[in-house]
Amino acid sequence: MSDDPVGAFVPGPRARRPGRPGGPLSGLTFAAKDLFDVEGVPTGGGNHDWAAGRPVPERHAWAVQALLDAGADLVGKTITDEVSLGILGENAFDGTPVNTAAPDRVPGGSSSGSAAAVAAGLCDIALGTDTGGSMRVPASFCGLYGIRPTHGRIDVTGMLAQAPSSDTCGWFARDARTFARAGAVLLGEPPGALPTSLIVAVDAFGFADPAVAEALKPMVARLGRIVGAVREEIMAPQGLSVWARAQRMLQPVEAWQTFQPWIERDNPRLAFSVAAGLIAGAQVSPAERNWAALMREEARARLRYLLPAGTILCLPTTPFPAPLRGLPLPAQQPLRDRITCLCAQGGLTGSPQVSLPGAKVDGAPVGLSIIGGRGTDSSLIAVAEAMEAAA
Amino acid sequence: MSDDPVGAFVPGPRARRPGRPGGPLSGLTFAAKDLFDVEGVPTGGGNHDWAAGRPVPERHAWAVQALLDAGADLVGKTITDEVSLGILGENAFDGTPVNTAAPDRVPGGSSSGSAAAVAAGLCDIALGTDTGGSMRVPASFCGLYGIRPTHGRIDVTGMLAQAPSSDTCGWFARDARTFARAGAVLLGEPPGALPTSLIVAVDAFGFADPAVAEALKPMVARLGRIVGAVREEIMAPQGLSVWARAQRMLQPVEAWQTFQPWIERDNPRLAFSVAAGLIAGAQVSPAERNWAALMREEARARLRYLLPAGTILCLPTTPFPAPLRGLPLPAQQPLRDRITCLCAQGGLTGSPQVSLPGAKVDGAPVGLSIIGGRGTDSSLIAVAEAMEAAA
Repeated sequence: MSDDPVGAFVPGPRARRPGRPGGPLSGLTFAAKDLFDVEGVPTGGGNHDWAAGRPVPERHAWAVQALLDAGADLVGKTITDEVSLGILGENAFDGTPVNTAAPDRVPGGSSSGSAAAVAAGLCDIALGTDTGGSMRVPASFCGLYGIRPTHGRIDVTGMLAQAPSSDTCGWFARDARTFARAGAVLLGEPPGALPTSLIVAVDAFGFADPAVAEALKPMVARLGRIVGAVREEIMAPQGLSVWARAQRMLQPVEAWQTFQPWIERDNPRLAFSVAAGLIAGAQVSPAERNWAALMREEARARLRYLLPAGTILCLPTTPFPAPLRGLPLPAQQPLRDRITCLCAQGGLTGSPQVSLPGAKVDGAPVGLSIIGGRGTDSSLIAVAEAMEAAA
Repeated sequence: MSDDPVGAFVPGPRARRPGRPGGPLSGLTFAAKDLFDVEGVPTGGGNHDWAAGRPVPERHAWAVQALLDAGADLVGKTITDEVSLGILGENAFDGTPVNTAAPDRVPGGSSSGSAAAVAAGLCDIALGTDTGGSMRVPASFCGLYGIRPTHGRIDVTGMLAQAPSSDTCGWFARDARTFARAGAVLLGEPPGALPTSLIVAVDAFGFADPAVAEALKPMVARLGRIVGAVREEIMAPQGLSVWARAQRMLQPVEAWQTFQPWIERDNPRLAFSVAAGLIAGAQVSPAERNWAALMREEARARLRYLLPAGTILCLPTTPFPAPLRGLPLPAQQPLRDRITCLCAQGGLTGSPQVSLPGAKVDGAPVGLSIIGGRGTDSSLIAVAEAMEAAA
């Protein structure tokens, strides 16, 4: 039997590195999305023309080094959507990892292989990235714990950049205890205090498929019992689709700035959808971009207002469970757009968000997300542990 | 030594088929651009995702069958720019064939491998296609005889379509005699009567690099002696760049219509420049497209007026010799645009055009083109023979 039955790892020899003996993560294994540098291994970036002409990394990415130093063993690098541009997890070069929780459906992306590897039990922890939803979406679709940390909280040295003002480094785990152990290492602090107030984002629940909102109800109830005070609020008074519109201008403009030198020099092969996204970024007008930057300020102000210390907000991570694999592009686009409506707040505001597993629709997982004020990552992890304990 | 020292043929086993014994082309060899069907061989189209899910051809393309029936031996299929979308001949999947006439320069495209194979002496004749310049440009850059026939004159059954209202099937040869022998088979008639009047397209000569116009002077003089009466005229009174603008709207719109179903179903990998060209076609507004269709009518009227029976027109095939290989995209784009200014009349008007070798700039070939009224293909071939005889 293959040691990669779900096609989660980058094809070819596995990048394996032992952890330092005696650390707090000793006995655990981890994988790293192929956007993270591993010393001596070309960073593939999910595109066969990315590594060409780039030096082989001479040191590990910060997060890889941190997990190794804490004793976890690296067992491989995982498939990613091309240079992190994708949200469904279908890669035309390396293949689509199998979502063991729903094998006929996509794993979600762009941290597709990391999520698939953890879901299949091939490792305990996996590093991923999240710019516009790349941790949260696969966590939701594969039924995992996954975090998009506060922007700037975790060092992204050695991580392939996409849109630096939104890029973050996160991780997946199957259980809250392991999730929290990795968090203690990567955040540098143990789980924090539990919040005391919960906001239910009624606009986001209303935007999700009714079956998703219904399936998440027991989790919301449990969360309310853990936190205490519960109230309903609109998260995005300007509109979820307006926040998404702003994010869909800011992020592609930055992505184009990031990748333009590579594209103009190497004219690389890209899946059509990836090229189309980059061109969309190149075509955003300065006036549109300026408006989007103002809306980002409004979104940040809104979450600062809603989320004082001790308050968290919950919403469906994704508006639906994982779509089927292999959908034609015209069927994918409206799905991507709807996902962005529930994910835009992360890239816009930089707030931390954890996706919690526990609900299913039509047999496929869907996650409940909790968001806190900037810097409250460890409190969200404490909530994850409490939710699992109360399940 | 490799049997393909210039990388002109599609990698993998060679598609070889013997010609029918005793035909008029017996003893000659030919190659077919990988847009032409060969029975039993997948048509690759210059893109690794094109053949997937398509049936293997059960019969030869019309032109392949015609050459085999006439006794020529097929010796292989040649590299093409992706689905014929390219003018420089650099393919990110199959590689860039070497232009033996100028090894540090591109071969021109999209019929890059066919031109490179003939130029290197690996076959006598090679089939190519021309929608926006794909025969004429590599003929000019590689120093070959090459024809874009009258639109509709040669059956394109079994040839991968791009923009059907501009698509044509042509061929290359190193010498005028072989060029004419292939023409007699493919056009179904021997070389025609020589024209008696020559127009020198002063706008096109003025648009080309001065060194190109200078290098072509002896050929123009020789052509004048063969034809007799010579006068100067502006070919495109509305502007070469206006004709090019019309062609750059009509052709990409049609190309997008052709490839959209494939792209939407398979989300194929494409070089960024190819994807960008398709997206440009998708973004042309109906109003722009309607204007372009009217300008096409004006261009057709202009060439009908200029080219009554017995009159031909000459112009530089390309405004410069082959550019260097591996230029970054921002350096390529103005070159492509300038090439289109001298090639747009073909796709717009459907007139036949033959590129004649014989001049060099900085050691690299550049072609002189002759254009006649629709249906005068065999007269242009007669001119090619007369030019070679008079050299």
